[in-house]
Amino acid sequence: MSEHDRQALQIARVAAQLGAALGQPLVANLPPAPPPAVHALPVDARALAALIDHTLLRPDATRAQVRQLCDEARTWGFAAVCVHGARVDDCRELLAGTPVRVCSVVGFPLGACGRTVKAFEAAQLVRRGAQELDMVIDLGALNDRDDQAVLDDLRAVVEAAGSASVKVIIETALLSEEQKVVACLLARLAGAQWVKTSTGFAAAGATVADVALMRQVVGGALGVKAAGGVRSRAAALALLAAGATRLGTSMGPAIVGERPAAGAR
Amino acid sequence: MSEHDRQALQIARVAAQLGAALGQPLVANLPPAPPPAVHALPVDARALAALIDHTLLRPDATRAQVRQLCDEARTWGFAAVCVHGARVDDCRELLAGTPVRVCSVVGFPLGACGRTVKAFEAAQLVRRGAQELDMVIDLGALNDRDDQAVLDDLRAVVEAAGSASVKVIIETALLSEEQKVVACLLARLAGAQWVKTSTGFAAAGATVADVALMRQVVGGALGVKAAGGVRSRAAALALLAAGATRLGTSMGPAIVGERPAAGAR
Repeated sequence: MSEHDRQALQIARVAAQLGAALGQPLVANLPPAPPPAVHALPVDARALAALIDHTLLRPDATRAQVRQLCDEARTWGFAAVCVHGARVDDCRELLAGTPVRVCSVVGFPLGACGRTVKAFEAAQLVRRGAQELDMVIDLGALNDRDDQAVLDDLRAVVEAAGSASVKVIIETALLSEEQKVVACLLARLAGAQWVKTSTGFAAAGATVADVALMRQVVGGALGVKAAGGVRSRAAALALLAAGATRLGTSMGPAIVGERPAAGAR
Repeated sequence: MSEHDRQALQIARVAAQLGAALGQPLVANLPPAPPPAVHALPVDARALAALIDHTLLRPDATRAQVRQLCDEARTWGFAAVCVHGARVDDCRELLAGTPVRVCSVVGFPLGACGRTVKAFEAAQLVRRGAQELDMVIDLGALNDRDDQAVLDDLRAVVEAAGSASVKVIIETALLSEEQKVVACLLARLAGAQWVKTSTGFAAAGATVADVALMRQVVGGALGVKAAGGVRSRAAALALLAAGATRLGTSMGPAIVGERPAAGAR
């Protein structure tokens, strides 16, 4: 049996269990995830930049560094800047009138503050102009195998986010394969628009294998964002080839600016 | 000039600058911090346990692990359990009728979510039964040298906390000596009850030198909590000797349970 087929069986099995646990056959009967659209790998700088969230999540980043981030995002044409809540107002002002989106984070990076706080944080970020929200799933509840609690936490944020896109960070470094599948199914069930591999604050970040698994679970129904340790053009292209449709990295200019290898032309 | 005298001059200089920056001569004129009360080092297990916040802040900690934490806190007589917001309800129930306090965290561990969210989180934790709040200072604003923004952030949490004690985590690993002094002065000015060295999620945790400096800044006016990497009885006693009045650690039973060295008896 191929690895792909083994994982497909695993996904079906987990979806059936989850449906039973939640009393929602819906989970097992989620419409089969359509295959993702096949895109050509973006060897062109503009196309690659448009898939990158230009990210600055160091807690002690200065206002001047945030300004530089926004300048670079505009110059290179990145999809979004990804910053902490305390910097959203600055970014919204600096990026007014540009196509660069403002992305911020919810319950970041531990995901353990509880759904009331996460929902408040989400609503407040959207009110202040954030258009995308990267939230951390409740890893404790996931470990408790309290699927309903995980789902309630996700739904609270999706609802509070309104029209803003929600990316569910599942923090793959802390999860078993089965937990990764559960997390992606619950994110889909909760109505999130994306699943995301990592916060960048755990022991490991995005891997090709995790992106491929997550893509297999969500099919073309959700976006997959790979983040954490994405530091080179080669790593970026490998993650995109595995099924990522967005990359979170602080190395965007270096990744886009590198010349494509001769063979890629 | 002794190290103590050099630091005393540094503290006076920073307090004067801060007072000018904030338009509050109050900072320079803070009543001289009284010397801390001199306590005998607690070689007795009960006395040492009463200075420890029994801490479980792994994001993926299970409900069963939280239950064990509370059981141990009751058995050993720790000052408090320190847990994420999502676990406060469980701890309050498990510890009802015991003298063990429930401590939780605000803006943890990066401190960058903005003061509106921090204040909401604080109020909500207190409403749910948290009696102590360990909050992370706004490290970005501290780096911007935007003293007013740091102070506003602290005051918002102190106000929202009501009768609960607030411990201000300054995350020493990310700060210069001058920034450590500024952070402690602002915590005192904001009306917080404690300063705390570290989250345990940065590259380094509590050091004897940082605790001594923080104690010198706050005198006996505030408590000093040492946390991050406190793993042995020897480390615990050294931090207490330097001026700490609370320790945050996940190793409480091992620290208290170790026999005192022969020489300490």
